[in-house]
Amino acid sequence: MKRNAAVGLSALAAIAFIVGITAIASEHGDEASVPIFLTEIPQGYRDFGLIAVSRLIAGNGSSQLRAQLGNDIAIKAYREGKLPFPDGAIIAALHWNEITSEENNKVLAKGFPGAGMQSFVPGSGVNIQFMVKDSKKYAATGGWGFGDFTNGKPGNEKLMQTCFACHVPAKDHDFVFTQYAP
Amino acid sequence: MKRNAAVGLSALAAIAFIVGITAIASEHGDEASVPIFLTEIPQGYRDFGLIAVSRLIAGNGSSQLRAQLGNDIAIKAYREGKLPFPDGAIIAALHWNEITSEENNKVLAKGFPGAGMQSFVPGSGVNIQFMVKDSKKYAATGGWGFGDFTNGKPGNEKLMQTCFACHVPAKDHDFVFTQYAP
Repeated sequence: MKRNAAVGLSALAAIAFIVGITAIASEHGDEASVPIFLTEIPQGYRDFGLIAVSRLIAGNGSSQLRAQLGNDIAIKAYREGKLPFPDGAIIAALHWNEITSEENNKVLAKGFPGAGMQSFVPGSGVNIQFMVKDSKKYAATGGWGFGDFTNGKPGNEKLMQTCFACHVPAKDHDFVFTQYAP
Repeated sequence: MKRNAAVGLSALAAIAFIVGITAIASEHGDEASVPIFLTEIPQGYRDFGLIAVSRLIAGNGSSQLRAQLGNDIAIKAYREGKLPFPDGAIIAALHWNEITSEENNKVLAKGFPGAGMQSFVPGSGVNIQFMVKDSKKYAATGGWGFGDFTNGKPGNEKLMQTCFACHVPAKDHDFVFTQYAP
């Protein structure tokens, strides 16, 4: 009875050990499978506040109009000059191909408010990029989870691995290039 | 006693009449002195949602980066395609001189994400313009009160009288040029 109990306990311990190992392995497996970048577009980003606007001329000479938006945590940090950004901060970057506004130019051609003016507006969307601050989850990439969505679909891993490397020169601003526009 | 009472009532009526006339005159005076444009910057406009961005090349070739923001009423109307905009809608247009971002260009010069790229960001502020919808108060200018502030100061009456005339060609969009950027 005593031996059986001991065997029983040993067996139980063995099972517990295997279960434990499996659990740890599984946990590590999960960690390894967690992408280092965003796979889903953060909800409500189109309602975020304005950080700034910008323009990018691509290598082929085409021009993009861009807007950088931030959730309340990000906007507050910007206004208070708080660095690094606190966990929960989200920055969204909306990129559009710049097109000429024929409608606006017709009005501008009339000479007011000034002759020779030209108006450019957002055309088709290029992509939407995100930075989500989670200092633990994204510790390997400066505490930021990067996202890049084209037509709603996330960039592949090869593309996403380039994000952080490109942001390293902005380390003094917590890896964020965009400055708040007054 | 009866006569005195009658005189008293007549006097009271006369006083009431004079007070009434004065009140009407004063009311008319107030109406006449109400400017047809904004004299104060609408509070909280920097927290408004993003409608769109744009760029304007001035007659002298200089470039402005621009952002159009809207309060909740304006954003809701845009998203629902509701025209005319309801009373209470406010649209803000922030205009900055476009400057080259040397910091960003240093990174772009390294060849990623693409060689030959150039980055432009907001420099000094040019002005902030507003359109505030109040179909009664601003009936004479399409229901919109226009505002134009440079360094926090409103434009003079001569400048402000040009706003509505310039917006008339956009009558089909309730005098608003900016379209919502997806």
